[in-house]
Amino acid sequence: MAGKPVPQRQHRPEVPEVVVTRLPQYVRILGRLEQEGSEVVSSQQLGEMLQVTPAQIRKDLSYFGRFGKQGRGYSVRHLLEQLREILGLDTHWDVAVVGVGRLGRAIISYPGFTPDGFRLIAAFDANPEVIGLQVGDLTVDSMERLEELFRIKRIRIAIVAVPVTHTQAVVDRLIECGVRAILNYTPTSPQVSKGVKLRNIDPVLSLQSMTYYLT
Amino acid sequence: MAGKPVPQRQHRPEVPEVVVTRLPQYVRILGRLEQEGSEVVSSQQLGEMLQVTPAQIRKDLSYFGRFGKQGRGYSVRHLLEQLREILGLDTHWDVAVVGVGRLGRAIISYPGFTPDGFRLIAAFDANPEVIGLQVGDLTVDSMERLEELFRIKRIRIAIVAVPVTHTQAVVDRLIECGVRAILNYTPTSPQVSKGVKLRNIDPVLSLQSMTYYLT
Repeated sequence: MAGKPVPQRQHRPEVPEVVVTRLPQYVRILGRLEQEGSEVVSSQQLGEMLQVTPAQIRKDLSYFGRFGKQGRGYSVRHLLEQLREILGLDTHWDVAVVGVGRLGRAIISYPGFTPDGFRLIAAFDANPEVIGLQVGDLTVDSMERLEELFRIKRIRIAIVAVPVTHTQAVVDRLIECGVRAILNYTPTSPQVSKGVKLRNIDPVLSLQSMTYYLT
Repeated sequence: MAGKPVPQRQHRPEVPEVVVTRLPQYVRILGRLEQEGSEVVSSQQLGEMLQVTPAQIRKDLSYFGRFGKQGRGYSVRHLLEQLREILGLDTHWDVAVVGVGRLGRAIISYPGFTPDGFRLIAAFDANPEVIGLQVGDLTVDSMERLEELFRIKRIRIAIVAVPVTHTQAVVDRLIECGVRAILNYTPTSPQVSKGVKLRNIDPVLSLQSMTYYLT
């Protein structure tokens, strides 16, 4: 994290991870509604857009306080602001990419991170032919500088796109440097210590979870 | 689906989608254990590798019959074979990519699909400068040929990487052509009709679901 200091937040009850995982989808939909000029949205409408029940919407939001008035729906702008703050999206986050092969390059070129406040500020690779190359706005650093640069720049979010045999070792190094959120693009699910969050991006697993329904 | 006929399966109880979503992870881990020469695995070990409880493992598998013997663990090979059959991974699946921009090209170049039985057999784009280009082993077809080629080739799985403003329209066309499983890389969650499965690959949503824990 860089830039603005982290705002202090009040104590929050334990929120199920599945609820937290849905909140960014709320933020995205509310952002779209705001752009379209909508001022109020009902849990019914939100439920339809998110394909969950209105009761689930109300329950999800109830973890974070009272947002709507019975029968009046939610204020789009207020709910959006609150959810952005709850998720820590009212600031920007510095992110580093580890592994700059074909996949790492596609990730660095992906235009979707910056508008949502995730700035890719460093990239690392072990291959001497890749180190020093310019990829997008970044110059690829050597893996030998990983610890130094993560610590100096206080990077707490990393995207991992290394060869699968290196995943666990790289993840261990990143956690050692203070990384607390890892987006893993390699086809394995590395172990992380308590307090570290991991999300796997794995298109094959996603495909395999659908073929069940095609048989 | 192409190649081998679909094997007839017995009637199965309704399995929660979250369980189905975990099965491919079981398959991946069991495949690795088999390669390493392991013959038996306990629900304890599987639970550790998947970061769920052993009770959850036993419950998940109980939907599909009896695989293990009390206190003896599961036969790696037998469980792997059964799960592969349950998920329809004992055959190969033909897949088409719609949208061959930067992201679509990275997807076509991704080496992970083929070893797991997903063959990319067609690619489509609307841009005249892209149509006809060779990308990987594929020649990009025009969107105008979408309906014709999906029907002729009986493609039931599509990967969507079009501009976000086109997502819903493209998804509607795909469903109309008989597609029943869609892997969506665009930053929106399109509506699909009943009986159609959709998975979203969205790195920004994944990142945003972790920053909650960093604040």
